[in-house]
Amino acid sequence: MPLSGRKARIKRAIYPGSFDPVTYGHLDVIKRAKDLIDELVVAVALNPKKDTLFSLDERVEMVREAVKDICDVKIVGFDCLLVEKAVEMDAQAIIRGLRAVTDFEYELMMALMNRKLNNRIESVFLMPASKYIYLTSTIVKEVASLGGCISGFVPPNVEKMLIEKFSRKK
Amino acid sequence: MPLSGRKARIKRAIYPGSFDPVTYGHLDVIKRAKDLIDELVVAVALNPKKDTLFSLDERVEMVREAVKDICDVKIVGFDCLLVEKAVEMDAQAIIRGLRAVTDFEYELMMALMNRKLNNRIESVFLMPASKYIYLTSTIVKEVASLGGCISGFVPPNVEKMLIEKFSRKK
Amino acid sequence: MPLSGRKARIKRAIYPGSFDPVTYGHLDVIKRAKDLIDELVVAVALNPKKDTLFSLDERVEMVREAVKDICDVKIVGFDCLLVEKAVEMDAQAIIRGLRAVTDFEYELMMALMNRKLNNRIESVFLMPASKYIYLTSTIVKEVASLGGCISGFVPPNVEKMLIEKFSRKK
Amino acid sequence: MPLSGRKARIKRAIYPGSFDPVTYGHLDVIKRAKDLIDELVVAVALNPKKDTLFSLDERVEMVREAVKDICDVKIVGFDCLLVEKAVEMDAQAIIRGLRAVTDFEYELMMALMNRKLNNRIESVFLMPASKYIYLTSTIVKEVASLGGCISGFVPPNVEKMLIEKFSRKK
Amino acid sequence: MPLSGRKARIKRAIYPGSFDPVTYGHLDVIKRAKDLIDELVVAVALNPKKDTLFSLDERVEMVREAVKDICDVKIVGFDCLLVEKAVEMDAQAIIRGLRAVTDFEYELMMALMNRKLNNRIESVFLMPASKYIYLTSTIVKEVASLGGCISGFVPPNVEKMLIEKFSRKK
Amino acid sequence: MPLSGRKARIKRAIYPGSFDPVTYGHLDVIKRAKDLIDELVVAVALNPKKDTLFSLDERVEMVREAVKDICDVKIVGFDCLLVEKAVEMDAQAIIRGLRAVTDFEYELMMALMNRKLNNRIESVFLMPASKYIYLTSTIVKEVASLGGCISGFVPPNVEKMLIEKFSRKK
Repeated sequence: MPLSGRKARIKRAIYPGSFDPVTYGHLDVIKRAKDLIDELVVAVALNPKKDTLFSLDERVEMVREAVKDICDVKIVGFDCLLVEKAVEMDAQAIIRGLRAVTDFEYELMMALMNRKLNNRIESVFLMPASKYIYLTSTIVKEVASLGGCISGFVPPNVEKMLIEKFSRKK
Repeated sequence: MPLSGRKARIKRAIYPGSFDPVTYGHLDVIKRAKDLIDELVVAVALNPKKDTLFSLDERVEMVREAVKDICDVKIVGFDCLLVEKAVEMDAQAIIRGLRAVTDFEYELMMALMNRKLNNRIESVFLMPASKYIYLTSTIVKEVASLGGCISGFVPPNVEKMLIEKFSRKK
Repeated sequence: MPLSGRKARIKRAIYPGSFDPVTYGHLDVIKRAKDLIDELVVAVALNPKKDTLFSLDERVEMVREAVKDICDVKIVGFDCLLVEKAVEMDAQAIIRGLRAVTDFEYELMMALMNRKLNNRIESVFLMPASKYIYLTSTIVKEVASLGGCISGFVPPNVEKMLIEKFSRKK
Repeated sequence: MPLSGRKARIKRAIYPGSFDPVTYGHLDVIKRAKDLIDELVVAVALNPKKDTLFSLDERVEMVREAVKDICDVKIVGFDCLLVEKAVEMDAQAIIRGLRAVTDFEYELMMALMNRKLNNRIESVFLMPASKYIYLTSTIVKEVASLGGCISGFVPPNVEKMLIEKFSRKK
Repeated sequence: MPLSGRKARIKRAIYPGSFDPVTYGHLDVIKRAKDLIDELVVAVALNPKKDTLFSLDERVEMVREAVKDICDVKIVGFDCLLVEKAVEMDAQAIIRGLRAVTDFEYELMMALMNRKLNNRIESVFLMPASKYIYLTSTIVKEVASLGGCISGFVPPNVEKMLIEKFSRKK
Repeated sequence: MPLSGRKARIKRAIYPGSFDPVTYGHLDVIKRAKDLIDELVVAVALNPKKDTLFSLDERVEMVREAVKDICDVKIVGFDCLLVEKAVEMDAQAIIRGLRAVTDFEYELMMALMNRKLNNRIESVFLMPASKYIYLTSTIVKEVASLGGCISGFVPPNVEKMLIEKFSRKK
């Protein structure tokens, strides 16, 4: 029988990302994930190789503030392998939001790699609202750095942090 | 606050398809879906426009036989809108397996359409085992019709039905 | 100097399609095209190979009715090469709407072929509103055939024609 | 050591297709394949499910005529699994031309399936000249059926056969 | 009626880019855009985040020199949001050239974002000549940096500037 | 006759890459290439612009060690245009491995550019084993940098070098 390796029932999931900064697109995925799996951990990656605009502490705090009125999730930072963090947090699934095709390619490849590293952790993909389909942290930072209005893309606390960050930079 | 319309907690999901025939790829997705959501309904589409090789009854029976030793799922046929069947079955999510890019495009478009038709039903995407990444019902039928060995692609009951069907056709 | 073959200034454009049926996505592209090029011809293809749900006459009439309150465009049917129809209508450009990646691939290939057949006719691509990104004539027909509500996807005259067509079919 | 199953040195390759009709794009791939592997078999698929415009015999004859002044290849028809025909012809590789992304997806999937059916036969992909990148048999048939000029897309013998076929159809 | 927000007739368009350096592909799009919309502004982006090989002044001058014998366009630099520059220049459309799929994804996303920032400005996509389909500024810089011949890819003034730049670098 | 420019018979091929580090995916392609073309040169690119983890000398040595028990290939470094290195090595073909769609896009574009630079050198694409489809040097470095186990992805000598490199970095 070619099917095997039954995993345990998924009770908790981890939603990883850089969240540099967190956007309404991420928050939309968090809400959808919470409908699916009750215990959700949002895991903010340190990403030492990518130059992030905000520090890990700033990003963890920013997500905490952004989700506090939406739903009850745990926020943690991590600087290890995602699957190790998932095991440490006792999560049996990784949540990922899907947008465009190039996105999808990368997500599929990461999911295959994560399954290779630990095949007991499932990757689950959710689709954000179509109005957030163009929304990435990179594009938000670019618009903010040029002084564009970003209130439709990020929650108020993040908008404030972005404006401060870029006014300080000048 | 741009996030709204909180849906009810997802307790039951529907996994729709033509299953003409059901493959190990489908069964792999069913197992993964069961780890995620305990109550799973496999919904076999009538598809009056597509010429199916097997009748709806044959396909429902074929899936029932194929899953019986794997896990406890409900099998139904349907000839209405998928979101209507989901509501009828009291399912709050639609499960879809993801494979290649062209696949993904179509899946994303269907998911957006289904959300437009009923935004209370979430689409959830799972990734089959990488060994099933090349596997489609169409390719299985083509190989079987040319007399190729399909025992690695479909369960024994399906293999038998395919061989019978194609020997009768000649 | 590798650049050559300057074409005449584009004054009129042709927007071809099957329009089986015309959707709000098509109408959105027509409006955008009219902002760009004042004289617009909507050209409904006979498509003898594809089984269309509506006859060429029905489709021409349906588009005429749908656009009459939006803007001033000419509607014609055609059963020849698109570039020949463009020349006949004195159009110097072909308008195409873009949606997904697979779409884009096909559009790019058709545009290259049309340029090969007549390099004096330019292909111009426009992007429909994001809310119509999931919308295709095929999906509208499928929803309508299953009795789903399509009033958000097609204008009232088309909705009426679809309901009639499918009730007659049963 | 994860690498194993060394195959025999590739001496002969098979280039399969429907060739309905053969185009300059196919002939371009044939020439490139001949530079790579000296013994080349062009294998024309019966394709009972797809309605071909030309019969298998017509297509085999058409390819034979088209290649006779280009290079020395063997032309055969086949109605079995491609990998079986490859084994029968003592070919150790399958040649495929690559064009667009959707093409590539399909090719990758077929190559994975063929490797699953017989892992001793390698799939080798070549890129046609960029001027043939828009060229498919389907598009040639469409242009020809509408009376367009196809002399830049297919060799003279094929052009003649297409004109005859479509004048007879009217 | 779901269609609304009619925009003013498009009279002027902006063609933005880094042009680091400008290639024959860009010039081909400029010529095609001029056939479509008579008043064209080529807008050279400062791009403070991307390390450009040439300074903004060098790039503006390089484009000015390259287009002077082709057609009458205005060249400007900009360091603000593209849609703001478009408004400032009284342009109602953004011109973009399309090449490959990954390109298209990014273009679609940027176009959706720009429409969100200012929905009165339309994005219009044109297809460069197929012979420039492989041509990017990045690849030209790479070939030039390795001493390869680039006279078929960029106009003479740009070729000279690239050779100077890379000889100085050594 | 639109087909011309017959090239010489392909006797030797070059397989270029950064190999930073070499993975089982690369070794799998090398083995497949050897079955196709007997004389194979693995060409390690200097890549002065990309920050490589290993120096050119380290990478050349690493590949030499990794292939020594698999097959007889020549290993060289290069810091010029790939097509020039191919000519210098008397290679008539460039071997490339194919993985995902975004990969394919880039590969196709590079192949078109290389053909433009020297149309006597053919690009030949091979498909690695499906189990290596998720495998890239970048992902291996990321996993190794976070202390994950990489013995399934790279040969023992490379694993050792990666562990050393990252322990030294801390």
